[in-house]
Amino acid sequence: MKVMIDLCVIPLGVGVSVSDYVTACQRVLEDAGLEHQMHAYGTNIEGDWDEVMAAVKRCHEVVHEMGAPRISSSMRLGTRTDREQSMDDKIQSVTAKLAAD
Amino acid sequence: MKVMIDLCVIPLGVGVSVSDYVTACQRVLEDAGLEHQMHAYGTNIEGDWDEVMAAVKRCHEVVHEMGAPRISSSMRLGTRTDREQSMDDKIQSVTAKLAAD
Amino acid sequence: MKVMIDLCVIPLGVGVSVSDYVTACQRVLEDAGLEHQMHAYGTNIEGDWDEVMAAVKRCHEVVHEMGAPRISSSMRLGTRTDREQSMDDKIQSVTAKLAAD
Amino acid sequence: MKVMIDLCVIPLGVGVSVSDYVTACQRVLEDAGLEHQMHAYGTNIEGDWDEVMAAVKRCHEVVHEMGAPRISSSMRLGTRTDREQSMDDKIQSVTAKLAAD
Repeated sequence: MKVMIDLCVIPLGVGVSVSDYVTACQRVLEDAGLEHQMHAYGTNIEGDWDEVMAAVKRCHEVVHEMGAPRISSSMRLGTRTDREQSMDDKIQSVTAKLAAD
Repeated sequence: MKVMIDLCVIPLGVGVSVSDYVTACQRVLEDAGLEHQMHAYGTNIEGDWDEVMAAVKRCHEVVHEMGAPRISSSMRLGTRTDREQSMDDKIQSVTAKLAAD
Repeated sequence: MKVMIDLCVIPLGVGVSVSDYVTACQRVLEDAGLEHQMHAYGTNIEGDWDEVMAAVKRCHEVVHEMGAPRISSSMRLGTRTDREQSMDDKIQSVTAKLAAD
Repeated sequence: MKVMIDLCVIPLGVGVSVSDYVTACQRVLEDAGLEHQMHAYGTNIEGDWDEVMAAVKRCHEVVHEMGAPRISSSMRLGTRTDREQSMDDKIQSVTAKLAAD
């Protein structure tokens, strides 16, 4: 089963600056070889369910190893059985409609 | 690694009534033997990370098997290394403070 | 327009214990006279859209006033035009199905 | 109070294709003159709290007017009192660290 997620990892107990932790998670995703795209309030990731979820778990492990005693993440998870749809497909279907006005 | 999640599974393409699908997910959680507590906009689940995530995957699989061609879930995930904290502990720490006023 | 939300307010830069801030938010909801029900990973709130959102804003203001320099909340928002449905209705429709097995 | 949100609006009861509704929401944001950036699983929006929330409400109203009887959105909300930080700032702080490796 393929999944597209949007993940936002929030370390607690390490002050207000979280960019070091977000950067570490980006590296986890690159090391995992997963398609991903960061935005200003999270990261889109797509791939096989088990591989994607293994990367999410690894993000939590890495952020704890970096010293964060507590993490609260939020995640959207999309799956569909009717057809394949990539992250680019989703954006294209909207931008095409906006352009058609 | 233990995790506490809050999960809301939303099937698309099956009309506005989603209670059959939510009911099926509750059964998945019971079959998995995981601590869980439903509320009006999701379900709290706690346990070992891999067991909890296996149940989340099973929920998506079951809801697709029931006929939903598309699912969009939202989930919060909390982990901590500083101490154990159950779902009841979290609620108690707030209700005790409210009662102390 | 009526709305049902599920809100989880996460203060950053104030350490790992967030129960004081959650408690303060519960008081905001009580002062607002809104129907609400706390669970282990957030709070269900229902009411008129503008009143509910005013309370969410007040929660952020109060948590900042208590000293949190940064807040990252997550929220689900449900609206429907087909019929009225309370928080209790949502839970009842699932528990009735579970009991019918 | 300034806020940065990440919004994902999910119409129920209108089939599996939601791009028409997402497109309508993009127009709401453009009409509101709010800074926004769509990604594959939501849209980042930043601005004054009241203006941003008015746009979120307008999205729900417009999607209902288009025929969706039920909507379930998910949203992240970030506020901070320590300093100004734009959507671009957040992304830059991570990409700079990734590039520095």
